[in-house]
Amino acid sequence: MKERTIFLLAAFLFCSASLFSQSTYFKESKDWLQKSEACKPSLIYKEYKPLRIVKSVKDEKAYQGWRMEDAGSTDVLFKESFKKHSGVVLDFGEHITGNLTFSLKLLGSVTADAPIRLKFTFAEVPGELNTPFDPYPGGLSRAWLQDEIMTLGTVPIETTLERRVSFRYLKIDILGASSFDFAFDKISFKAQSSVETMTDTGLAETTDPLIRRINEVGLVTLKECMQTVYEDGPKRDRRLWIGDLYLEALANAYSYKNHLLTKRCLYLLGALADEEGLLHATVLEEPEPHPQEGTHCLDYSLIYNIALLEYVRTTGDVETARDLWPVVVRQIEMTLRQFSEEWIYDMEKQPVYWLVFDWKDGYDRQASMQGLTILALNKSYELAKLLGKEKEVKEWPSLASKMKKAARKHFYDKKQGVVLSGAGRQVSYLSQVWMILSETLTKKEGAAAMKKVLSMPDACYPGCPYGYHYVMEALLECGMDKEAKDLLVSYWGGMVNKGADTFWEVYDPNNDALSPYGFFPMNSYCHAWSCTPVYFINKYPEVFQK
Amino acid sequence: MKERTIFLLAAFLFCSASLFSQSTYFKESKDWLQKSEACKPSLIYKEYKPLRIVKSVKDEKAYQGWRMEDAGSTDVLFKESFKKHSGVVLDFGEHITGNLTFSLKLLGSVTADAPIRLKFTFAEVPGELNTPFDPYPGGLSRAWLQDEIMTLGTVPIETTLERRVSFRYLKIDILGASSFDFAFDKISFKAQSSVETMTDTGLAETTDPLIRRINEVGLVTLKECMQTVYEDGPKRDRRLWIGDLYLEALANAYSYKNHLLTKRCLYLLGALADEEGLLHATVLEEPEPHPQEGTHCLDYSLIYNIALLEYVRTTGDVETARDLWPVVVRQIEMTLRQFSEEWIYDMEKQPVYWLVFDWKDGYDRQASMQGLTILALNKSYELAKLLGKEKEVKEWPSLASKMKKAARKHFYDKKQGVVLSGAGRQVSYLSQVWMILSETLTKKEGAAAMKKVLSMPDACYPGCPYGYHYVMEALLECGMDKEAKDLLVSYWGGMVNKGADTFWEVYDPNNDALSPYGFFPMNSYCHAWSCTPVYFINKYPEVFQK
Repeated sequence: MKERTIFLLAAFLFCSASLFSQSTYFKESKDWLQKSEACKPSLIYKEYKPLRIVKSVKDEKAYQGWRMEDAGSTDVLFKESFKKHSGVVLDFGEHITGNLTFSLKLLGSVTADAPIRLKFTFAEVPGELNTPFDPYPGGLSRAWLQDEIMTLGTVPIETTLERRVSFRYLKIDILGASSFDFAFDKISFKAQSSVETMTDTGLAETTDPLIRRINEVGLVTLKECMQTVYEDGPKRDRRLWIGDLYLEALANAYSYKNHLLTKRCLYLLGALADEEGLLHATVLEEPEPHPQEGTHCLDYSLIYNIALLEYVRTTGDVETARDLWPVVVRQIEMTLRQFSEEWIYDMEKQPVYWLVFDWKDGYDRQASMQGLTILALNKSYELAKLLGKEKEVKEWPSLASKMKKAARKHFYDKKQGVVLSGAGRQVSYLSQVWMILSETLTKKEGAAAMKKVLSMPDACYPGCPYGYHYVMEALLECGMDKEAKDLLVSYWGGMVNKGADTFWEVYDPNNDALSPYGFFPMNSYCHAWSCTPVYFINKYPEVFQK
Repeated sequence: MKERTIFLLAAFLFCSASLFSQSTYFKESKDWLQKSEACKPSLIYKEYKPLRIVKSVKDEKAYQGWRMEDAGSTDVLFKESFKKHSGVVLDFGEHITGNLTFSLKLLGSVTADAPIRLKFTFAEVPGELNTPFDPYPGGLSRAWLQDEIMTLGTVPIETTLERRVSFRYLKIDILGASSFDFAFDKISFKAQSSVETMTDTGLAETTDPLIRRINEVGLVTLKECMQTVYEDGPKRDRRLWIGDLYLEALANAYSYKNHLLTKRCLYLLGALADEEGLLHATVLEEPEPHPQEGTHCLDYSLIYNIALLEYVRTTGDVETARDLWPVVVRQIEMTLRQFSEEWIYDMEKQPVYWLVFDWKDGYDRQASMQGLTILALNKSYELAKLLGKEKEVKEWPSLASKMKKAARKHFYDKKQGVVLSGAGRQVSYLSQVWMILSETLTKKEGAAAMKKVLSMPDACYPGCPYGYHYVMEALLECGMDKEAKDLLVSYWGGMVNKGADTFWEVYDPNNDALSPYGFFPMNSYCHAWSCTPVYFINKYPEVFQK
């Protein structure tokens, strides 16, 4: 959070690019944008009705201190004066994204003599509905919180809330009414996604019920984020980020197989690269496709290359990779500039880039970035070979070797058997992970390092499912299948056991109120980067379905 | 207020008519509704921009304790980050009614990465803008207060606030924003009325400047209330009431001369009479023309007859009066049922009707209703003669005589020279007024009675301009021209001197915070029944223009 704030401030002060300026670095940008638009999916709509009324119950044992209890049928809302039911909470049964339509009718003989004022609060999780939003203590825009106040001029009336919302629970309060009585005539929600919900991926019968449920929750999470781009979260931020795209595309390949959406996002990101050819970490579709100017995450730039390779491997669509090849090359070039003469990633070198890797305060990202760069060089070289372009980039394998060598010298403590990062010689899960994925450590060294950090209470552990995804990858890479399965069950299963309908942006088993934004209701509780159990469970049936 | 609440409660409990039921008492109802719709005016639109920024200044001497001070040009809102200007108050220069459109643009290079949340508070008077609305202490629906909260998904954006508002001052607060900067690109208001503002009615050059200003303020008040019906107030209640219609039509006849609007309202009220043929005191246009079911004010029913006579006299449109003649007859019949055998209006007789006459707690309405009935009988008989229908109602003149005689006996204290009303023998301005207007008192007796009450500190004086209108009428009727002019200058001039742009629903020179609704921001500060200085000043140039 802190880094991001500082970064945006810096961007505001120093960035001179005009708004929505099209990058001119890649002369094909316009063509790529058109190709992206051509793949824009038509949304699929489905109507939902509230299933029941629920009541918030304070419960210390429940996630964030609140759980929902059945409070009966919604019939009363259509038959009795709503003035008796102000504050009601409706449960739509599952996480949905779209627009609410409702109509009100008069009850009794007194006609409407005044407007009414209603407040609609949409919540993904119970705690969000039971935590006052104001005075707002958080860091991001208060406007993300999903409470909308409407003045309705008369009754009867039918209206649609213009704002797209994402939720399971809806609270409705009367803020203003007159002497006349009214009830709902209709409450309907038009949910949207670019795919139809999938509830099963054909898991083996031997699959543990909890893992089966994790798979289901992952499928809903992914479906909810698959809109006209891969969104990071349908509640917040509702946009395409490279990191989320990569993980969503992995899970999509083992479930919905909507590869056109992946293609659209790859072209869109390429088209909106900056004037140096560096990808923006995130781009937006409205009012017209444009980048979040100045927002670059150098780790995400490299992840793009890996995502493109995965896309080609999955689809065989070499043409797209050929189009976007210059983007791949440029991300490597831009990253190399940040390395020291000794081939160590220099965290101080201007411009200092934002590195994501995880949402975790105090986590030192240097070793991780060193590892990711090595991995990206190798993966990008694989792509070059697929495209017959290895001669263009023939120095990449040797560069990767040099970096590996430097990494082992600089970051790997042979004696302790772990990778250390930064001036503070920090031991973190993710420093090990990236050195494993980049094959800087051997499988044996990697397994030893992972075992060690997993048993170290002080090791810096990941703060969110995005970080844990790579931990999973590393464990599987080292042959630590049991540990991978245990992690899946304890981490994603932990969310399920705490009532998750969709997987959360941030989850620390030790802190339900953790938020990178200073206010947990601001967290996204259906977040793309958390959906990857779908990928793991289905890609590795021998590990997860037995 | 109390009476109204009780009344509505009673209506809810006892009224069995179905909603929006068409009265079947007058078989011509449907035809009348069509004639009313045929006269529905096309609205005239005019674009307004904010003229300047103003600052609220606490000032004990100012009306309701607040005045506005110039705070510079609005240019800054279009050039500087609005995050520096949250809480700004814009002055549109005059009272306008319609819809706000605005657009926002980005400033600097940081693009929008989050929605923003803005609050728009529209106020007719400075005090309204400086009195917290919540927790809401008032009686009527909180939704009348004109604060709207909007979530705007991105910037740049252009949007129109769907709610029609009525105001001079607009406060804009940021409730949620992100790191990006934005400014206004456009702020525009589409004002509406069925007439174009008139600023002068050709007053004599000798007219006192204050009276000239009173005339202007009355003209704006009337224009603002002239929408697709004569509204009582464009902020609240935004509907047609019989009492307001009568006074607006009087002022209209001396200014805008939009007689079709009067015709529309007369037909609309007639068409929506109840199943006994009794007029509803108020009717609404949305979602389709319908009465406020169960809301009858028997004094307003009689005022309808007088308004129809005035309309025919002004326009010569005998055909409309001939159509609506059965309504006139029925209002008289329904009123006569409430009289005792001694021809005294019985305040206890069931059904007990709501009588308006004025917004004033503790004012006894019995003598006033006795007077009004006599006046209505005489005026309705005049109408009968105009239509050649006097034979049908030949008993009316003698009934009026009997009531007069009974009134003098029952209410007039010859010794004191004043009319007394109710069990408490109350002395009020309005008891005298209605006995004067009905010619129950001679002009001489009337003048003496008025002089007496005007000098009695304890006399019950009117609470609002509607009541004062009839005081003005009575003073002029008694030849008390000087007192009438003094009242105009002190009462309506008092509002002007306190900064009124339009005349207020409620004005007690002794109590700026007076509200029939328990919360003064709920008062309508542009209220139809206050516009009649336009009628007086222009009808009686010899009194007011010299």
